[in-house]
Amino acid sequence: MTAEQFATRHIGPGPDDERQMLETVGYSSIDELMDAAIPEVIRWHGTLDLPDPATEAEALAELRALAARNTVAVSMIGLGYHGTHTPGVIRRNVLEDPAWYTAYTPYQPEISQGRLEALLNFQTMVTDLTGLATANASMLDEGTAAAEAMTLARRGSKSKSNVYVVDADALPQTIAVITSRAEPLGIEVRVLDLDTEQLPGELFGLHLQYPGASGAVRDHAGLVEAAHAAGALVTVAADLLALTLLRPPGEIGADIAAGTTQRFGVPMGFGGPHAGYLAVRSGLERVLPGRLVGVSKDADGNRAYRLALQTREQHIRREKATSNICTAQVLLAVMAGMYAVYHGPDGLRKIAERAHEMAVRLASGLRGGGVEVVDVPFFDTVTAVVPGRAAEVVAAAAERGVNLRLVDADRVGVSCDETTTHEHLATVYAAFGVPAPQGEVEAALPVALARTSQFLTHPVFNSHHSETAMLRYLRRLADFDYALDRGMIPLGSCTMKLNATTEMEPVSWAEFAHIHPFAPAEQTAGYRDMISQLEGWLAEVTGYDAVSVQPNAGSQGELAGLLAIRAYHRGRGEGHRDVCLIPSSAHGTNAASAVMAGMRVVVVACDDDGNVDLVDLDAKIDKHRDALAAIMVTYPSTHGVYETGIAQLCAKVHDAGGQVYVDGANLNALVGFAKPGKFGADVSHLNLHKTFCIPHGGGGPGVGPVAVRSHLAPYLPGDPAGERADGTPAISAARYGSAGILPIPWAYLRMMGAAGLSRATGVAVLAANYVAARLRNHYPVLYSGNKGLVAHECILDLRPLTKATGVSVDDVAKRLIDYGFHAPTMSFPVAGTLMVEPTESEDLGELDRFCDAMIAIRAEIDKVGAGEWPAGDNPLSNAPHTAAMVTGDEWPHPYPRSVGAYPAGVDRAAKYWPPVRRIDGAYGDRNLVCSCPSPEAFED
Amino acid sequence: MTAEQFATRHIGPGPDDERQMLETVGYSSIDELMDAAIPEVIRWHGTLDLPDPATEAEALAELRALAARNTVAVSMIGLGYHGTHTPGVIRRNVLEDPAWYTAYTPYQPEISQGRLEALLNFQTMVTDLTGLATANASMLDEGTAAAEAMTLARRGSKSKSNVYVVDADALPQTIAVITSRAEPLGIEVRVLDLDTEQLPGELFGLHLQYPGASGAVRDHAGLVEAAHAAGALVTVAADLLALTLLRPPGEIGADIAAGTTQRFGVPMGFGGPHAGYLAVRSGLERVLPGRLVGVSKDADGNRAYRLALQTREQHIRREKATSNICTAQVLLAVMAGMYAVYHGPDGLRKIAERAHEMAVRLASGLRGGGVEVVDVPFFDTVTAVVPGRAAEVVAAAAERGVNLRLVDADRVGVSCDETTTHEHLATVYAAFGVPAPQGEVEAALPVALARTSQFLTHPVFNSHHSETAMLRYLRRLADFDYALDRGMIPLGSCTMKLNATTEMEPVSWAEFAHIHPFAPAEQTAGYRDMISQLEGWLAEVTGYDAVSVQPNAGSQGELAGLLAIRAYHRGRGEGHRDVCLIPSSAHGTNAASAVMAGMRVVVVACDDDGNVDLVDLDAKIDKHRDALAAIMVTYPSTHGVYETGIAQLCAKVHDAGGQVYVDGANLNALVGFAKPGKFGADVSHLNLHKTFCIPHGGGGPGVGPVAVRSHLAPYLPGDPAGERADGTPAISAARYGSAGILPIPWAYLRMMGAAGLSRATGVAVLAANYVAARLRNHYPVLYSGNKGLVAHECILDLRPLTKATGVSVDDVAKRLIDYGFHAPTMSFPVAGTLMVEPTESEDLGELDRFCDAMIAIRAEIDKVGAGEWPAGDNPLSNAPHTAAMVTGDEWPHPYPRSVGAYPAGVDRAAKYWPPVRRIDGAYGDRNLVCSCPSPEAFED
Repeated sequence: MTAEQFATRHIGPGPDDERQMLETVGYSSIDELMDAAIPEVIRWHGTLDLPDPATEAEALAELRALAARNTVAVSMIGLGYHGTHTPGVIRRNVLEDPAWYTAYTPYQPEISQGRLEALLNFQTMVTDLTGLATANASMLDEGTAAAEAMTLARRGSKSKSNVYVVDADALPQTIAVITSRAEPLGIEVRVLDLDTEQLPGELFGLHLQYPGASGAVRDHAGLVEAAHAAGALVTVAADLLALTLLRPPGEIGADIAAGTTQRFGVPMGFGGPHAGYLAVRSGLERVLPGRLVGVSKDADGNRAYRLALQTREQHIRREKATSNICTAQVLLAVMAGMYAVYHGPDGLRKIAERAHEMAVRLASGLRGGGVEVVDVPFFDTVTAVVPGRAAEVVAAAAERGVNLRLVDADRVGVSCDETTTHEHLATVYAAFGVPAPQGEVEAALPVALARTSQFLTHPVFNSHHSETAMLRYLRRLADFDYALDRGMIPLGSCTMKLNATTEMEPVSWAEFAHIHPFAPAEQTAGYRDMISQLEGWLAEVTGYDAVSVQPNAGSQGELAGLLAIRAYHRGRGEGHRDVCLIPSSAHGTNAASAVMAGMRVVVVACDDDGNVDLVDLDAKIDKHRDALAAIMVTYPSTHGVYETGIAQLCAKVHDAGGQVYVDGANLNALVGFAKPGKFGADVSHLNLHKTFCIPHGGGGPGVGPVAVRSHLAPYLPGDPAGERADGTPAISAARYGSAGILPIPWAYLRMMGAAGLSRATGVAVLAANYVAARLRNHYPVLYSGNKGLVAHECILDLRPLTKATGVSVDDVAKRLIDYGFHAPTMSFPVAGTLMVEPTESEDLGELDRFCDAMIAIRAEIDKVGAGEWPAGDNPLSNAPHTAAMVTGDEWPHPYPRSVGAYPAGVDRAAKYWPPVRRIDGAYGDRNLVCSCPSPEAFED
Repeated sequence: MTAEQFATRHIGPGPDDERQMLETVGYSSIDELMDAAIPEVIRWHGTLDLPDPATEAEALAELRALAARNTVAVSMIGLGYHGTHTPGVIRRNVLEDPAWYTAYTPYQPEISQGRLEALLNFQTMVTDLTGLATANASMLDEGTAAAEAMTLARRGSKSKSNVYVVDADALPQTIAVITSRAEPLGIEVRVLDLDTEQLPGELFGLHLQYPGASGAVRDHAGLVEAAHAAGALVTVAADLLALTLLRPPGEIGADIAAGTTQRFGVPMGFGGPHAGYLAVRSGLERVLPGRLVGVSKDADGNRAYRLALQTREQHIRREKATSNICTAQVLLAVMAGMYAVYHGPDGLRKIAERAHEMAVRLASGLRGGGVEVVDVPFFDTVTAVVPGRAAEVVAAAAERGVNLRLVDADRVGVSCDETTTHEHLATVYAAFGVPAPQGEVEAALPVALARTSQFLTHPVFNSHHSETAMLRYLRRLADFDYALDRGMIPLGSCTMKLNATTEMEPVSWAEFAHIHPFAPAEQTAGYRDMISQLEGWLAEVTGYDAVSVQPNAGSQGELAGLLAIRAYHRGRGEGHRDVCLIPSSAHGTNAASAVMAGMRVVVVACDDDGNVDLVDLDAKIDKHRDALAAIMVTYPSTHGVYETGIAQLCAKVHDAGGQVYVDGANLNALVGFAKPGKFGADVSHLNLHKTFCIPHGGGGPGVGPVAVRSHLAPYLPGDPAGERADGTPAISAARYGSAGILPIPWAYLRMMGAAGLSRATGVAVLAANYVAARLRNHYPVLYSGNKGLVAHECILDLRPLTKATGVSVDDVAKRLIDYGFHAPTMSFPVAGTLMVEPTESEDLGELDRFCDAMIAIRAEIDKVGAGEWPAGDNPLSNAPHTAAMVTGDEWPHPYPRSVGAYPAGVDRAAKYWPPVRRIDGAYGDRNLVCSCPSPEAFED
């Protein structure tokens, strides 16, 4: 008698499916297949030491028990994390809606118009509020956004100085992240009290906080002018809510604004995930890092959205990219943008005014009770001076359920927000030991800094203010998009597997959602136990000795891992080691991260089979032996192959004094069968949003823990808001990064157990080999390893067909939309190919539907090749077909409408129609528009 | 400084919208409009005595506090309510998904194919498991299903007897509901211990429980044979989970099966809502009450679903209907059906086997510890005999967090279910004071009753077993349907207003969801306080003195109200009063309810203005003066008019000794402006799923509280599971009916407050008058009251146009689908008309979109009238247009495809496409198929 196993729900193919798939692939069991596929040299034959799998109900009960050990206090700590009310309609219909959270990054814009519009709203919200020209589609948090602003200033400044000045009243965790980022790049960070200290004569950039961490609202105009005079660029880290009342950065001359949108309806989540933002003045948009949504047009000339200026990004520019940032915080950016849509400019202003009034009332009450309050203009935060009594006051408040900020022994910070009530103020008075005040109060914002410019004037921010209207707007946008709730997303390297409801539900619980990252330790015991268990399980799965979940994206995990290597070498007096070998097949992010870690990238060639060319590796090692810091490889390779040379590779690098970094992007092919930490690697980052079921959220959140062997453990990320040992960087703003979504991988591991995880790996490899076997006669499968087997993904080579017929990989990708699919990964790692990763979650019916579609498309390509359909006007070149196109009164194409609309196998009643035709990306890059276009603009 | 008011989110039009609407209607303010619209004779000028409105956050906090006062214990009480695991994917994507819960009853089948398929799954699940031919699409609960089975037996039996025999081992609450229903119908219920007592010689029906309330599994074959020999029909109230292991009712000769599907994934909710079921053998399907989904075909000959045999129903047959049942439990039926889809036959059998094995283990352990266990075959429930100690054992278990059933002073019932764990058994042993047993045990089901037949063999129950597959199936079905999340549903009389997320969220909380209706009072203090507050607020809003929320649908509220009137007359020695006057314009349910309450229906005519004809009323009163029991009127009338004669009408009926029943269907037009309990009525039922925001759920759940003046209060429903005073009926199986969804109206009332509620009424009336004003020149508005104003809805008269052009009300309704709307109410209360109720939640943009569509349709009708388009082949007669139709390679119609697909104003990118063309309902009635057709059947 066993209760139901979650693994049977997570894994798509049942026993009958599995039998049939094995037969096609030619093996009698998954074990036999895996024995053949995985090189014995890396194979691990143990059983993962994990607790017996819990049922879904049991896992939820355990998480409830952990959650119950967190205390949901009223947070008045501030420091960039604020209480906020997530409107129910947004929580339910974005955060908790699979149509939003299971979507992929909008690289296929025709089937991503919903989230692209939502992100354009986000960008418009940021540009309007900051008064700057262009904002990107979200950063990971305020700390990393500020760090990116620093390197952006470095690229954009004319100054030759390496000095970056940071306002001492900046958020402490921001200073920590900036400092950590600066060090390997040779940037000197000077933290100055700008009320008293002068700017140095030379500097390339200046970081100001607005309002300051202390709550002070300063007029920064003079500093901006002085910095500009020195040729420096100025970043203002601004609170967007405050900017509804305060003169925005753009109007005081700032070049860059950075910050967080957390308080726009996104729960604190013990530190994340939330969407950071980054905006620049006109002229800097082409050096802005991160994803940028822009407006372009489709084949019918209709307005359409897509990612703009992608050539700035790491997957194209590699080590020359503006940044290594890849995964962003799309789901949270959508929430924050929708919060602005729902409240509109007046609503936001009212929320800001109310928070301000609460703070004013508080200051007045404290003063009335004889407590000194620092006498500066402020928005929502006041600093009280209680010599020697600060800890006592903070403790008294905490006992009453309210967390305040302990600034130092003499000062207490109190921050008000949307959720602050008179009862909360009463508690604060009690904690300070002053009576509650009576009477009215007046605003304390400096008149000179009052905002006079309008914002959020676009109709989208002024139309959806009833819940009914908002609900429909969200549904309308969601319906534009294709996500996992519609069908397979067979994206090689991205592992679009099930994001189970049971994994997702705890994310909404107050005990996980409403915890400030700097809440007292005794209030977060449940969180810390959960994280510690998770880190332990991840170490067991990967064979490493220590894990940190702080990196809040894979790119950050890479940086953390490389910084650990760097610190390790320096710790051994080998700080000169700065060469990072990277195979030509690597993710572009690897190279960009290496640059950020202060390393020089040396590319290692791949051989004809797609493996790292060990001869070239020897040559490169020889050439750089003394400077060799590390090699970064992905395993299985980005070609989807279990390379047999991996153990040799590790040995060669180690012999030369280098460290081995194994990119964990493809860990889905290893779990339970091989452990990077045991087959020669020193460090990996994992993508919890790939192998461990955090949903992609339309392009984020992700979590990228870094896992290391013991000799690197001393160099794992430290506490950004606390003391950090030398060599322990602050990678993200919060100690545990995006802690709020860690219940997802926790639940996945807890429910799968050792056997479930291994079975998932086996089925993922079986599924990829099944697809390869079914499609091999129709498209060459580019690389394979042992016995012609692929790992968990396979590359279909379109190049010969393209050469023969002119039908491109793009045409096939877009035609798949007509068949009801999201395209596989296009032209990575090899241009002109498609990389298919079916994952273990797709059942045989869906795998077959995909294979049938690909085979049918091959027949369509042949028709073009045979001249039956003209090259420029066929179902492939015209794909995707919209309903508007195939219902047109005219039909000028040389194939029937039904072929365009309903290719073989498509369910007519349930057909997914893309809202736009093929999008002209280049047009949009030439005519860059990155905020909401006027409604009239849609009419042309 | 005020925090945001919920009313601004609930009410669609903002200040600008309101101004523009008032201008169109010709009034300067809502107050002025309401003064003009509502007759002064009923107008109430006070301010509702309700607490100040809470913000959404405050309301949730208060509900959290109430919830915290409920105790979620492990329930082993049984008696028809069992612990169950709602699969997360079903909770999130059905119960918590607006696409499912905001849908209307599938009377427009072309835009309801998703929920119709889900209900067909439900019906198939019930027929397969019960072994009977036809099941309906859900009943309100097991008690009412059993009562309906009784009247069905009465209709179907050849016996002239009025005796109905009920198994003494039936559920006590079922016996209570049956008895309450029987009394006014003159049916004699005899509850017999059929183990020892003989069946009487004459009876028309027999009700058996299988397994019995005690847990005993009996072979009923002999009783069935004996009952049949007497000409009686046999109902078996069966546990569907048990039927996966036990010979089903249909195979032991039962004519009818009734019961609940609660344990198929639907939380107990302190009594409801859950879907009851009712199934009949072949030959009885046309006397089966309730909604029945059947298979038919559309205009292209494609298979399509719709409600079958609607002529049985009360809205057509009125007092001759099979039952008054109207609202069902669609949302819950969808959940239960999907639970079967997700688990499949093997999964369900395993769940049953596990529950059985737990019970066996328990019995063995108790016996091993020296406790006597009643020695009968059982499935999941055992009865332990502990002379004199039963209360002590139950208390000991409750202290340890487990609720058992106190059968009597000597006996304790213990019921196992899907959620039972070994820890729970250990607690039970401890409560009984016996040691936990060791070793294996054997099943205790009687071999002779083992199920041998297959069930759930249809592919739908064998395909969606991974969460990914299930998620996509739910999305696919949801996408077929049109619900409030897509656009307006302007259904007269049905009040399709916002169902706010904040109202909905608490329904999922464990402290409301997982409470057994018979849990000890000390565990349900929060629930009872919430209900008591809600009843108080409803009394305040309606002007009555007492309210009972027990009736779990409007129809049940009507019955409860009429039974109160009946009991009142009897209590005064006037039991001969049995005439119920009902205006010709009344809802059919009124008449059907009157019959069920043992009354004779006498119809009162309406005058040309649609008002009750007071002359005819006088005549009918004169004729029936001595027998007059009551009048049932709807106010505002079903014509959407505030009749000025209402006060006179009340007085006339009272003068003749009758009582006045005001049907609360249209309360949305009165709240804050008039109180039925103050303008002359004695009793009303309310529809919490109309005025008070419980979502329609695709046709249920509803809640229909009954509200009375003090003289009727002694006759409100009593406790079905406890002692009831004479004249206090058991209306539904649980004391508080569908308690689990009462947080919805509670939150609505709590957040709106007096001003918000009045404003909602005013805006609803304004919106209806705005629509009337905009459409009056295009369609005659049929009735109006003071100053030509309508109340909260308006009737558009299509009859002259139909006469002139042949375009029917059906054509217009279906054409509205092409325009992206759900049709208004068709042909009620007047054949050939459309009744439009916009509600307060639609903003001006959506109202205008609707009016524009109606005006454009009028122009289309004129084209048909002018002969520009032929009568049988035009955009109206061909509506709705599917994508498959307008993308066809051929287009034989005399108007362009674009006119069919995208009539004026339709957003091409966001177009809603119905999955089928117009459905031929009559074909399906002639060829009745009410379970899932084979996949091949779809191919013809």
